[in-house]
Amino acid sequence: MNKEHLYAWFKEGTITIPSFLLTNYKSLGLNEQEMVLLLQLQSFIDKGNHFPAPSQISDRMTLQETECLFLIQRLVQRGFVQMAVEENQEIGQEKYSLAPLYEKMMDCFLKTLKQAESAEVQKAEE
Amino acid sequence: MNKEHLYAWFKEGTITIPSFLLTNYKSLGLNEQEMVLLLQLQSFIDKGNHFPAPSQISDRMTLQETECLFLIQRLVQRGFVQMAVEENQEIGQEKYSLAPLYEKMMDCFLKTLKQAESAEVQKAEE
Amino acid sequence: MNKEHLYAWFKEGTITIPSFLLTNYKSLGLNEQEMVLLLQLQSFIDKGNHFPAPSQISDRMTLQETECLFLIQRLVQRGFVQMAVEENQEIGQEKYSLAPLYEKMMDCFLKTLKQAESAEVQKAEE
Amino acid sequence: MNKEHLYAWFKEGTITIPSFLLTNYKSLGLNEQEMVLLLQLQSFIDKGNHFPAPSQISDRMTLQETECLFLIQRLVQRGFVQMAVEENQEIGQEKYSLAPLYEKMMDCFLKTLKQAESAEVQKAEE
Repeated sequence: MNKEHLYAWFKEGTITIPSFLLTNYKSLGLNEQEMVLLLQLQSFIDKGNHFPAPSQISDRMTLQETECLFLIQRLVQRGFVQMAVEENQEIGQEKYSLAPLYEKMMDCFLKTLKQAESAEVQKAEE
Repeated sequence: MNKEHLYAWFKEGTITIPSFLLTNYKSLGLNEQEMVLLLQLQSFIDKGNHFPAPSQISDRMTLQETECLFLIQRLVQRGFVQMAVEENQEIGQEKYSLAPLYEKMMDCFLKTLKQAESAEVQKAEE
Repeated sequence: MNKEHLYAWFKEGTITIPSFLLTNYKSLGLNEQEMVLLLQLQSFIDKGNHFPAPSQISDRMTLQETECLFLIQRLVQRGFVQMAVEENQEIGQEKYSLAPLYEKMMDCFLKTLKQAESAEVQKAEE
Repeated sequence: MNKEHLYAWFKEGTITIPSFLLTNYKSLGLNEQEMVLLLQLQSFIDKGNHFPAPSQISDRMTLQETECLFLIQRLVQRGFVQMAVEENQEIGQEKYSLAPLYEKMMDCFLKTLKQAESAEVQKAEE
């Protein structure tokens, strides 16, 4: 057994996502391609690449480079992804932020809770 | 601030997936819908539901129930998902296993390593 | 390279814990031995063993079986661990729950936020 | 309910560790304090701080600053932690690496597998 191979696997690492996102992306208005593209962005950001090129993303997906670019633009327009400029660099460096996605996810979670609570109150009153 | 809401969020939990799967599902011959469907299965299994109904899966996806069923059948036929019968139950209970997916993932990882090693050897010999 | 070894490693899996717990267990009144013991309990529960024997825990820790038992009892008394009886079994089966730990963690988090907010308000008023 | 509080919690994030490390640190010759200190280092590194000060670590642990420093030095001497110098900086910046810990973990895992296999072979031959 080759320890180097095992260690290489270990270094690949894992990505941890909120279960709620996986179970509720449809409620947020996302489809599977958009969901996976957002996971790819998260994965790049986690590894320190805050502004992956469309080609880097399309390498991992069943989409062409132009389709990736289009999909990202749509996600920015629809308020799931934010384009920001990293300030602490000499040259302004663009970067993606998924903060808007996670805020929408929180809104959705709180709405879900509130609906469940209303339903319970209504049931108790009957 | 409502502690119950925060605790409810915490209990939703997380799902942890190998980064390699996210970055190489295309090499395995999977598309984004299939990838997300497999994550849904993993998520159900993690929470103790080893045989979710197609309707439970389609509730979370932009797919109809029949499309989910069809996609699962295809994944079984193509050797990504296994149908097994849980033995330690009085009544035989069917369940899904993602072991074949993870074995394919390992094969792909080892193949990738081997290719990288061959490329290095070749480069050294030049 | 032996795929079976790699797959065996993969099946070992991971344990995911809230960063806040790791960075604030001291504020909760826990020491390192207690913290690790709680992680061991979480790990057993995640794998479906809700009532590990003290010997199973001491196998993994630098503690004797009696020390483990004592430490668990103390954690129960101090309200970090709850002993419950699983209802959906024919024979009542005891089990550990870490719900009280996570509730304390939430209280601590909210208290920390509130303190930070007060500090900001005070600063703004000066 | 205050969404900001929920989002603040979400941003705290999680730390994911190999189950094998949690269940076998004793076999590696580590005790609970050392185990938790290594998790703290991992947590700092994950968040981009590759060289936390002893005071930052002791803030989170039931150890004095000097005890933390001593413990880290011992872990370096015993080959669990490596001190390296980050090259891609103008001024050489020291940083901790846990690569040696994870290599030891892999060695331990492979040894455990080998022992299990030998035991099976022996059993089959009887």
